[in-house]
Parts: sequence; structure tokens; C-alpha cells
Amino acid sequence: MSLSVTALNCTLKSSGPSSTDRLLDLVMDALAAEQATGSRFRVAAEAVKPGVSSDEGDGDGWPRIRQSIVASDILLIGTPIWMGQPASVSKLVLERLDAFLGETDQNNRTPGYGKVAAVVVVGNEDGAHHVSAELFQALADVGFSIPAGGPAYWVGEAMGSTDFKDLPAVPDKVSATVRMLARNTAHLARLLKASPYPGY
Amino acid sequence: MSLSVTALNCTLKSSGPSSTDRLLDLVMDALAAEQATGSRFRVAAEAVKPGVSSDEGDGDGWPRIRQSIVASDILLIGTPIWMGQPASVSKLVLERLDAFLGETDQNNRTPGYGKVAAVVVVGNEDGAHHVSAELFQALADVGFSIPAGGPAYWVGEAMGSTDFKDLPAVPDKVSATVRMLARNTAHLARLLKASPYPGY
Amino acid sequence: MSLSVTALNCTLKSSGPSSTDRLLDLVMDALAAEQATGSRFRVAAEAVKPGVSSDEGDGDGWPRIRQSIVASDILLIGTPIWMGQPASVSKLVLERLDAFLGETDQNNRTPGYGKVAAVVVVGNEDGAHHVSAELFQALADVGFSIPAGGPAYWVGEAMGSTDFKDLPAVPDKVSATVRMLARNTAHLARLLKASPYPGY
Amino acid sequence: MSLSVTALNCTLKSSGPSSTDRLLDLVMDALAAEQATGSRFRVAAEAVKPGVSSDEGDGDGWPRIRQSIVASDILLIGTPIWMGQPASVSKLVLERLDAFLGETDQNNRTPGYGKVAAVVVVGNEDGAHHVSAELFQALADVGFSIPAGGPAYWVGEAMGSTDFKDLPAVPDKVSATVRMLARNTAHLARLLKASPYPGY
Repeated sequence: MSLSVTALNCTLKSSGPSSTDRLLDLVMDALAAEQATGSRFRVAAEAVKPGVSSDEGDGDGWPRIRQSIVASDILLIGTPIWMGQPASVSKLVLERLDAFLGETDQNNRTPGYGKVAAVVVVGNEDGAHHVSAELFQALADVGFSIPAGGPAYWVGEAMGSTDFKDLPAVPDKVSATVRMLARNTAHLARLLKASPYPGY
Repeated sequence: MSLSVTALNCTLKSSGPSSTDRLLDLVMDALAAEQATGSRFRVAAEAVKPGVSSDEGDGDGWPRIRQSIVASDILLIGTPIWMGQPASVSKLVLERLDAFLGETDQNNRTPGYGKVAAVVVVGNEDGAHHVSAELFQALADVGFSIPAGGPAYWVGEAMGSTDFKDLPAVPDKVSATVRMLARNTAHLARLLKASPYPGY
Repeated sequence: MSLSVTALNCTLKSSGPSSTDRLLDLVMDALAAEQATGSRFRVAAEAVKPGVSSDEGDGDGWPRIRQSIVASDILLIGTPIWMGQPASVSKLVLERLDAFLGETDQNNRTPGYGKVAAVVVVGNEDGAHHVSAELFQALADVGFSIPAGGPAYWVGEAMGSTDFKDLPAVPDKVSATVRMLARNTAHLARLLKASPYPGY
Repeated sequence: MSLSVTALNCTLKSSGPSSTDRLLDLVMDALAAEQATGSRFRVAAEAVKPGVSSDEGDGDGWPRIRQSIVASDILLIGTPIWMGQPASVSKLVLERLDAFLGETDQNNRTPGYGKVAAVVVVGNEDGAHHVSAELFQALADVGFSIPAGGPAYWVGEAMGSTDFKDLPAVPDKVSATVRMLARNTAHLARLLKASPYPGY
């Protein structure tokens, strides 16, 4: 069973090299090995407006991204850490997904039901667990399921200054985590695609 | 397919009436309607020692609880909110589950793999989303899967003083959330029991 | 001793009525009674760019806000809660303040040193404690001091739908909290203005 | 002006070497250079009961610690990170401090008013910012003031295994942070001791 993926890079930069992109590359490759492929958006380049509706009108970049998410089996959110917390761009995404709560079907299921969310976090300091906590909670709230095993992440030594994109090689533990995340995410997505939540 | 549940009440009180128990009652009833039944522990009454191993020796109450979790398909954690945060007793539980990370099988799967975790939160103030964020993150880290829909919770008006156990009736929205949590949790647990994560 | 205040309303809406504004009104009035006055910005209307520098160039609205903050004794951040978490607009502000870490003086003091930060939170659901946690941590990291007493906040009953701006009257507990916040904030700001941190 | 300090080591271990102790040693030394001295408790060895009152009766170890805190100008909390979150022992401490909210004087001031809280965090992984966020919020809620500059912390490279207590030397950045924390904490404590918050 092939699966579709929407990946969102929530870096603050609208262009240029991104550590988050580098880790997303690894995860997308590992997902492809599980027959899960799709498209990636750099959210900061997409003119997404702040708000909590599915369309904030007038040039809003969100509807196009939302359409891709709704058509996908897997949502992959990649975010850098700033001040130990999720990037504001990832919070913007979560707020837009809040609209799912008002878009339930006749069985009280949001458009997120049956989809699996996975999280990728990169920082040169500290904060990956907390960032994934915030994302997992908000994503579960709006109907995504969270697979076993937590996020794929890389965080340098605290108060250090190395960036993931500049590492000469990917650490083995990161590679192992990426592989496990891809396998778990694809497995859960296949199960839920074949057997959707019934709602009530 | 019948399912087994371990429910943990993480109130700070070792005995007496508990708002967390009242909400757990509702969730356990709703799970029973999905053929998911099992046992409940009041952790504060079980002499669980602080630590990050599976057995801290010498009168430690954790091994008995751990055995029940390992034998179950569903882990249900109920916690009150104190100061907007998870109760210390629930943190004690998460720390003891941390030992799962060192107990992986030949396919790198922790004892949590294939199990579903659900969360129940009660407060007379504020904090249910944050509490579920912390629990979801830690539970996913050690291998549990998180179903669609977030926690079942009740929180009174901020700076108020009503307790859930003293409400004359269960609010309809709480009942609806409980029902959805039970259905989603059981559905996901059945899928993962029939088709375990492969690991790698 | 008179004090200057910069207040930031971090609602997602660039215009229109705002519950956050209503609570900021109360706090600004209470601060004025302590001889602390100043200006308020609605950040979503100010074209603030994502980033972690003090000037992201080319139409960036941050430098004007930053100038006001640097010239003030008190920074007051008001934010709504979305999904139990701080609004993305408030995270944008924190990220821009991150630049302070690279702008220390000869005594290793950031531009935030000697300034007091206070936090105002409004939600129709749940999350005030967590929101203040995230703001306090990031604000302390970049050099602001946090007075006794926590945030001023209002949060409706969980899963409810009342907005603070539509309440017929301000609850007494909110008024009391606002008054205490204003007194504590002004007191600490006066002390630090008269006796700055020495750095090292 | 000399100052008194109560330091709490919130390691999960009731005895033996502790990375948290090592970092607390550094901070206590730096505070001593500011004429701030006092006593340290290893909370896990003190039979502190879970609860939210100032005395849980019958062998409870908290009243002795509470008495020291109430008599001190500075509260220093040191905690390890587990799963990216504060240790359960530190949560136990925060819950016991919650009782301050019911112990206000005629000017609505809790026993924490006028005291400064500082935070020390050690982990071999990730989570110092989040841990300090949770501690700062709860401490401010009950009346402590938070000085400029955030926590003193050390966190190893994520998914690593080095402990702070085993480092051959203290990194320069940690030493600088410790020194700044001590100077800021003592400065703020002196100001508030000489000029207490008035309350209302």
C-alpha cells in the first residue's frame, strides 16, 4: 500500500539552507523506502496568514497547504527550536489546523482522523522533547494519531553553536531514529488507512 | 477482540474521594463497552519509589504496576493538575517508564510498542492541554502510540474552586469526549494488537 | 519615580475587538495608578517579520517596537491562548527578543537587564499557566526580571465558548490579580531602575 | 548586606554522587562570594510527602524544609532532567509550595513575596529551557521573583550519555552563567529585602 506525505518545514527563513531541511531530507528518504512519498512546503515562503480558520482570505497561502494535508496519509512537521520552544512558524501551522475542530463529519471525526503525524526537530541547543510535546498535543487534539517512538531530532551541546546542516556526517543515533520514525509512521498510517476510526 | 487495560490514578492522595477517579470511572465504563477491561491502581498508595529503573528494590511498588502495564494493550493515565502542571505522581510514573528505553527487543522495540496510551486530566483551574502534552511526549518517547482526539478532561473556570467529583452532573461535552476517547483508543489498540510495529 | 511601559497585544487579528485588549486595558489602567504609562502595539498589525535578529530589513515592523521596548522600564506582553499554547504572534516576539543575547554590554548585560516583564493571558478554554511559563522562561533568558505573583489571566470553563471581551462584568478575582500585578511590576521596576544589575 | 539561601537538590536518588549537586556546589560558591550562604537539602532523602498543604502530618519531612525556605532570602532549586521534563521530586516541591497561596498576609502577600528564586538544571540530554519554564511559572505563581538571566544549566549532546559530574572540567560557558546567576540573584534579593513589595 503506497502512502502520501505532506511535509512542512517551519524554519523562520523563507529561503536558503536549513538544518530542518537536512533532517527532513533524511526522513523523506526513509519514508520513501516505505512507499510513502509526497510534497514539502517551506511555510515561511508561503504567505500563510495568522488565524484559526481554514481560509483567511485575500492571498492567504494556507488553503493550498491545507489541501495537501487533507489529501495525505501522513503529516510531517519539521521545526527548529528557538529559546527551547517550537518556532513561531510551527505555531502558526498548529493554529490553522485548529479549524479542523469545527469541520467534523457526521461521526464527529475531524479531517485529521486516520492521518498520522510525525515530528522532526533541530536545534543547536536544547528543547527537542518540549517541542515535540507541544506539537504532539496540538496534533492529537485536532485528530492526528502519533506513532510509537517520539520525534526524530538533533540537538547540539547546550550553549554550543554547531548547526545540523554543517555537521560533516549524520550521527548514527540520528540515522537510527530516522529509520525507526519512518517505519513506525508508515506502519501506523497503513493500518489507519485500511481501518479508519469509526467515530460515533 | 477483547483488550486489556491498566489504569493509573495519579492523585496526590493515597486514599479518599478523587475527582480523577470519577473521570476514570467514566472512561473505564466507556472502554468496557468496547470490550476493553482491566485493573486500576492508585499510585500514591502503592509505595512506588523514585527512580528510572524497572525495579528500585526493597519494597518498591512499581514492579507490580509495571507487570500489569506490560501485560495490557492500553495504558490509561489519569492525573490531576497542580499549578497548571501534571501531578508529581504522574511524573514519577513517567520516570519509571523511562526504563523501557533500555529494554528493547531484537528489533529495537521497547515494551511499550504496540500499546496505546490515553490520558485523563482533571483540575479545578487550568492546564489540561499542557498536562496532556507532557504525558503524550513522554509516552511516545518510550513506545506508546497516541490515538486521535487528545485527552478526556474537565477543568473548571480559572481561579474557581469547584471540583469535578462534586459536580451534580457530568457535562455533555465531557461525556462526548469520554466516549470518543474510548472508541479511538480501543480501535487503535485492536489494530496494533493484530498488526504489531515491525521495528527494524 | 515615573515609569515607562511598552505593551504588546499578541492577538492573531490585525484589527477589531480583542479580549486581550480588554484585559490589557485593565492592566494599563492599574499601571497608570502606579505612575507607569506608555504605548501599546497590536503586533499582528505591525508587519513584524519572522527571524532572530533585531532588524530583518525591508519593511520589517520590529525595529520600531524594539526601540520602544529598549526605552521602557516595563514590557507587558498580552497573548491569547490557542490550543493551550501561546499565540504564534507572541512566539514571533520572543524570537525577535532572542537577538538581545548577542547585544550585551561590557558587563555582559543584555538590553533587557533592569527591565521588568509582566504577562497577561486570555483564553476561552485552558492554558494560562503554561503560556506564562513559556513567556517567563524566554523573557528571563534574554534578561527581563519577573515580579512576584504570576500573570494576570482569565480563562473560561474548559470546552466553553465565552470570550472575555463579552463578559458583562470583570470577575473580582481578575480585578484583584490585575491590581497585584500592577503593584508588583511597578515596585520591581522602580527598584531595578534605581539600582541596576551590576553584571560582571 | 548578607543574605540567606535555601538550596534544594531534587535528584531522584536519596544518596550518592549527583550531577545536580556538582552544579549546585558551583552556584553556592558563587553565591557565597556575594555574601549569600545557607543550607542545602537533598529532598529525596527527607521523606517529603505528596500533597498541597504545608504539613501533611505524621513524619512528613516538608515542614523542616519549608521553615528554612521561609527564613531565607533566596530559594535555589536544582533538578535533573528526565524525559525532557523536571524531575518528579521538583514537582513534589512545587506542589508543597502551592500552600503559600492560602497563607497570604493582610496585604495579600504570600510567604514567597520578597524572596528570589533561582534555578539550576542538569541533564545528559535535552530540556533545560522547558524545565526552567515550569519552575519559573510555579515559583512566580506562589510569590517568588525571578532575576534576569534564566537558569544555570548544563546539558550534554542529545542522545549522549556523559554526566556533568563526570566531566573533567567545568565548561567556561557554564562558569560564566553560574557567576551571572549568582550576581543577579543576590542583587535582586538585596533590593527586595531592603524594599519589600507593598501588596495592597
